[in-house]
Amino acid sequence: MLLSQTIAAIGELNREAMAQAQARVDSLLKPPGSLGRLEELAVQLAGITGRPAPEIRAKSVIVMAGDHGVVAEGVSGAPQEITYQILPRFLDGTGGIGVLGRHVGAKVVVVDIGVAREVTWPGVLVRKVRPGTGNIARGPAMTREEAVRAVETGIEIAQEEIAQGADLLATGDMGIGNTTPSSAILCALAGIPVAEAVGRGTMVNDAVLARKRAVVAEALRVNRPDPADPLDVLAKVGGLEIAGLAGVILGAAARRVPVLLDGFITGAAALVAAGLCPRAKDFMIASHLSEERAHRHMLAALGLKPLLDMNLRLGEGTGAALAMPVVEAAAKILREMATFGEAGVSDMERDKLL
Amino acid sequence: MLLSQTIAAIGELNREAMAQAQARVDSLLKPPGSLGRLEELAVQLAGITGRPAPEIRAKSVIVMAGDHGVVAEGVSGAPQEITYQILPRFLDGTGGIGVLGRHVGAKVVVVDIGVAREVTWPGVLVRKVRPGTGNIARGPAMTREEAVRAVETGIEIAQEEIAQGADLLATGDMGIGNTTPSSAILCALAGIPVAEAVGRGTMVNDAVLARKRAVVAEALRVNRPDPADPLDVLAKVGGLEIAGLAGVILGAAARRVPVLLDGFITGAAALVAAGLCPRAKDFMIASHLSEERAHRHMLAALGLKPLLDMNLRLGEGTGAALAMPVVEAAAKILREMATFGEAGVSDMERDKLL
Repeated sequence: MLLSQTIAAIGELNREAMAQAQARVDSLLKPPGSLGRLEELAVQLAGITGRPAPEIRAKSVIVMAGDHGVVAEGVSGAPQEITYQILPRFLDGTGGIGVLGRHVGAKVVVVDIGVAREVTWPGVLVRKVRPGTGNIARGPAMTREEAVRAVETGIEIAQEEIAQGADLLATGDMGIGNTTPSSAILCALAGIPVAEAVGRGTMVNDAVLARKRAVVAEALRVNRPDPADPLDVLAKVGGLEIAGLAGVILGAAARRVPVLLDGFITGAAALVAAGLCPRAKDFMIASHLSEERAHRHMLAALGLKPLLDMNLRLGEGTGAALAMPVVEAAAKILREMATFGEAGVSDMERDKLL
Repeated sequence: MLLSQTIAAIGELNREAMAQAQARVDSLLKPPGSLGRLEELAVQLAGITGRPAPEIRAKSVIVMAGDHGVVAEGVSGAPQEITYQILPRFLDGTGGIGVLGRHVGAKVVVVDIGVAREVTWPGVLVRKVRPGTGNIARGPAMTREEAVRAVETGIEIAQEEIAQGADLLATGDMGIGNTTPSSAILCALAGIPVAEAVGRGTMVNDAVLARKRAVVAEALRVNRPDPADPLDVLAKVGGLEIAGLAGVILGAAARRVPVLLDGFITGAAALVAAGLCPRAKDFMIASHLSEERAHRHMLAALGLKPLLDMNLRLGEGTGAALAMPVVEAAAKILREMATFGEAGVSDMERDKLL
C-alpha cells in the first residue's frame, strides 16, 4: 500500500524550474558552461525540487544494515559478525561513514533492517524485517512480503528524515557478503553475464572470486527470478538492506528530494527502484564510480554519470558523503553567484564564442 | 636570491612518516585499500608534512591576477577589463571562487601581480610587478628579472599564508587571455605540438581557435624560448599570474605544505615550478582535469592524477576549492578512523584476500 502510493507519487522533473535555473546559470559571471558538471547538477536540483534556486540546509546519510545467508558459501573475506559489531562506529564517528559523515556535516542514520544478531546498540534504529536473509544459493533470500516490508521500511525512514528537514539524502549499506546478491540483481535486472557482474568485493582472492561466480550462477538457477518483476528479483536473490535502500530512493523521489547514490550495493537497490518506477532515475545522483567495477554496468543501465572516480569500494555511504559538498556547491552556484549585470562586469564577447 | 633559497629548501617526501601512515591506513576498520585514492592522498600528506597523522586546520586559495598583451591579437572571448572588474567579486563571495571558497571554508587571497589597470579595490593585495605583459606574438612577455620578481612574489605570499596558519594551499588565476601563454609554455616545456596544446579557453569559436594556434606558433617562433631554462620560457611566453603561481607552488613545497593545483593555467605554472625543481612535484595535488583538454598533457608531464573530472574550465581556483574537502577527508581518515583492534571488531579473514 505504502509502496504503491509512493510509486504513484513520483512525478516528473519540473521543466519550468529547470529552464529558469538554466537561464540563471547562463547569465552568471563566468564563460558559458565553464562550471561543467556543477551546472548540470544545479539544473537537475531545480528540476527535482521544483525550485529555480534550491537550497540544501540539512543532509542525511541513511545506512541500512542487513546480513546474508549466502556467507555460508564462503563468498566474503570478512566474518559475518562485523555487520553487527561495526554499527556503533558509524554513530561515534570512528567508522568510515562516521568520519566522512561528520566531515561533510551530514546526519548519519543507522538502521538495523536485517542484522542476524539482536541489535541493542544505542542510537541504531531497529526496524528489523528478519534476522538476515536465506542462503540464495539454496533458495530465496526472503519472501515477497518481506521484500515489500523492507522497501516500505526504507520509504518510511526517508520520509522521517525529510520531515525532520533533510533536503539531501544519501544511501549507505552495511552487510557482510552483500556484493554477492548485488551482482545477482545486476544479472537478473540488467542482463549482465555472471562473469562480468561479479567482482572482488572486499578484494577476495581468485579462489573466492571463482566461488562467488559459481554461487551467483547457482542462485539464479535455483531461484529463477523474473527479470520483469523487480520485487521477485529482490525477494529471491536480494538483501534486506538492498530492499531498504530501494525504499529510501523511492521515498526521496516521491517527496522531490535529491538522493545521492553510494556504490555497488546502492546500485543494485537503484536498479530495483528504477525497475519499480523508471521516473525515479531522474531524482538520483550518482556520487562515484566504485572500484567494484561491475558498478559501471549499473550506472549505464540507470543512465547516470558518476561525480567522482576515486577507486572507493568501502560502501557505508562513504562515496555518497564525499560527493555531498559537490552537490551543495552546485546549489550555491545558483543561489550565491552574481550575473554579469548584477556585478557590473563587462559581458563576454559572445560573437567570438561557440 | 629568495628563489634559489626556496628551491634549495625543497626536500624529499618523508618516507618514515609515509610508512607509518600506510601502516595505520592498512589497520583501519575497512577492507584493505577500500578507500582508494583517499588512502593514497593520506599517505602523500604524511610524506609532505613529515607527520604520520597530518591535520588540516586552515586553508587558503591564492588567486593571482594579471593581464596579457596578447589579447590585442583577438585570442579571447572576453574583454580585458574583466580581469580588473571581477576581483572584488572573489572577495565578496559572488564570483565563482568567492562562492566556492566560502563553501569549503577557505580564505580567498586575491593578488594583483600584473593587472593592466591600477587596482584600488579594498582587500586585494597589490604586488604588481608590471601592468600586464607584452604581446608575446611580437616579443617577450616580460624581462627575466620581472619573471623572477613575480615568482618571488608568489613565494612570499605562500610564506605569508603559511605563517598565518594555512596548512593547505590552493592556486587560482584570473587573467583574460591566459590560456594562450599557458599553451605556449606547454609547447615549450613539454614539447607538445601547438595544435594539441591550444584549446578553446572561454569556448571560443573555430575562427578564434585558429587565430590562437597561429599566435602561439608565432610567439614560439619570435621568442625562441629555451626549453632547458624554465625562467626563459616564463619570461618570453608566460604571464605574471603564471609566474606568481609557480612561486606559490615552490613556496608551499619549501615549507612542506601541500598545494592543490587548479586547472590549465596552474598547470603551466606547475610545469615551470617542476622545471626549476623537480622535487616540487611531490608536494603537488592535482585537483581536477580541466575541460581545457590539453591540461591532460600537463598532468602527464607532471606525473599527477587528478582527483576530480567535472568538465570545469573556469579557473580562479574553483576546481582546487572543490577538491579541498576531499583532501581534508583523506587527512581525517588517518586521524579519526579507528583500527579493528581499537574498535573491538573482528578482523578480516586475510587468507581469503588478494
